[in-house]
Amino acid sequence: MNDIFLRACRGEEVPYTPVWIMRQAGRYLPEYQRVREEAGGFLKLCKTPELAAEVTTQPVDVLGVDAAILFSDILIPVEAMGMHLEFSEDKGPVLHDPIRTKSAVDRLVVPDTEDSMPFVVDTIKILRKRLAVPLIGFSGAPFTLATYMIEGKGSKDFVNTKRLMFQNPGIFSLLMEKITMTVVSYLSAQIRAGAQAVQLFDTWAGVLSPLDYRNFAQPYLRSAVAELRKEGVPIIYFVNDCGGLLGDIKKCGADVIGVDWRTDLRDAIKKIGKKCAVQGNLDPLALFLPKDEIEDRVKEILWKGEFARGHIFNLGHGIHKETPVDKVVSLVEAVHRFSER
Amino acid sequence: MNDIFLRACRGEEVPYTPVWIMRQAGRYLPEYQRVREEAGGFLKLCKTPELAAEVTTQPVDVLGVDAAILFSDILIPVEAMGMHLEFSEDKGPVLHDPIRTKSAVDRLVVPDTEDSMPFVVDTIKILRKRLAVPLIGFSGAPFTLATYMIEGKGSKDFVNTKRLMFQNPGIFSLLMEKITMTVVSYLSAQIRAGAQAVQLFDTWAGVLSPLDYRNFAQPYLRSAVAELRKEGVPIIYFVNDCGGLLGDIKKCGADVIGVDWRTDLRDAIKKIGKKCAVQGNLDPLALFLPKDEIEDRVKEILWKGEFARGHIFNLGHGIHKETPVDKVVSLVEAVHRFSER
Repeated sequence: MNDIFLRACRGEEVPYTPVWIMRQAGRYLPEYQRVREEAGGFLKLCKTPELAAEVTTQPVDVLGVDAAILFSDILIPVEAMGMHLEFSEDKGPVLHDPIRTKSAVDRLVVPDTEDSMPFVVDTIKILRKRLAVPLIGFSGAPFTLATYMIEGKGSKDFVNTKRLMFQNPGIFSLLMEKITMTVVSYLSAQIRAGAQAVQLFDTWAGVLSPLDYRNFAQPYLRSAVAELRKEGVPIIYFVNDCGGLLGDIKKCGADVIGVDWRTDLRDAIKKIGKKCAVQGNLDPLALFLPKDEIEDRVKEILWKGEFARGHIFNLGHGIHKETPVDKVVSLVEAVHRFSER
Repeated sequence: MNDIFLRACRGEEVPYTPVWIMRQAGRYLPEYQRVREEAGGFLKLCKTPELAAEVTTQPVDVLGVDAAILFSDILIPVEAMGMHLEFSEDKGPVLHDPIRTKSAVDRLVVPDTEDSMPFVVDTIKILRKRLAVPLIGFSGAPFTLATYMIEGKGSKDFVNTKRLMFQNPGIFSLLMEKITMTVVSYLSAQIRAGAQAVQLFDTWAGVLSPLDYRNFAQPYLRSAVAELRKEGVPIIYFVNDCGGLLGDIKKCGADVIGVDWRTDLRDAIKKIGKKCAVQGNLDPLALFLPKDEIEDRVKEILWKGEFARGHIFNLGHGIHKETPVDKVVSLVEAVHRFSER
């Protein structure tokens, strides 16, 4: 097996910089579109192990990336906690009856993954038989899952989340504790099923001031990471819009810190120090540049990555659905070519 | 006149830290709601000098802030450049026929403010007779105006803007040059009419990587600031989500750098240095906290502000429409009380 990704996570020497791409199994790939249609929609695709495994494998074959990431949705464990999840084509995900009261929190369960999300376990088992690169399991981080549960749908300002945090910190904390238990149990089950690394996505933690991050997000995240470390696989923690939080994020206990594109990678590494590897950080929309300019940016990011304990090349956020596939193929090729030692 | 705000902009000694609030004339104020209804809608309110002046004055009376900011919309000069602007209650502003081609850029005009936006000049003249605090004029910064013109409506990822930037940099640059001329002429006219300071809002520049900020936003912003300096009034430059860009932003030539809430103010001041004053940076949603906790945060921000060349207290972004007015009143009072020298 190509274990270069896992070695880079651990800060070990590697023959070249490994690369994978957030949301690499996605709508920019015609192969993915076809399987999604066959499945009869996004949520059905997530819940059909054979098809979910197929789309997980596609980017490994098409792009030549060094890791696969479980195809699933960030809200799958939230549905298993007892919320009613729906996807609409125009509005995105909707969670009915958003959580705003203590009784709503009390009604939530901490689900058993094998019982209530068996398709996740089954997808991982299929994949481990098939893949020649490491498989990354994933979950939303506690704060980010809380925002979805409290807002119920997309938000520009997260006013409901912050109102609950600020006006009912006791209820917010009960909710976070239940989510944290869910995240730990969900990722542990993924690891037991065969995931060789896990990534915690904190997509919305960047809307918090550093003070609020320390009060309302970090304690739960750190306790989840501490529990998960016992499983013995590398842990990646990605906060979108992380710039102002890196001084705190570096203390999270994860092996790898994901960095979005808004922060210069050299500056980020200076803040993170030598205890964690880094992952990132090309602007996903830079894939609309001409190939030679993409290559220039790849070289610069690779050069900056040399200063870290370890570097895994990635985009600074999920790939955009209108990205031309040939640009992605040449990105992966360029990362490998320019980083060869 | 209370000129404490202007003195803080220039880094001079002040008896207490001045405070104003982004979007302080806004929907959280019942007095504002009433006048907006009387005007028959938001855009009509912007274009009726007597009423625009009235809502500009309201927060000075109700809150006791140390500066007023012209009530207008960021898209007013864009409409004057020749685009068709519409406001819908649910979708926000829509600009018809978004700019994506050279011929679309060629059709845009650089408007004369006195001719095509006389209501702005008239509002300022009324206000200068009435106000006992300084009046801030404002405009969107070139990059942010470009995003609206290219996207045509709100965007999550600014894919059309970045696609134009990356695939047709020549067209993008022609557009930016025309916008920059407009911004300079528009703000100069505001200053001639009586504005005693101006703020450039770069609401969306934070979606750029530092490299792209330097290539696609900074040159135009700096040239606008350099031109505007000749007018002799303090210039404030605010980038929302500025954390990763502060090393570049500090070179913009403005007197004051606005800082959003995602970055710790002490860290921001370390990056900005002693050449510019700072403005900020309480999370607007922190106004949902209990009063004593708001006061704790005010004290902390004031303490950090002491390290800057000058400090103007403000929120880190526009005030939220659901904010309780009494919290805002006590915020302003707390800033004055805790900063008294």
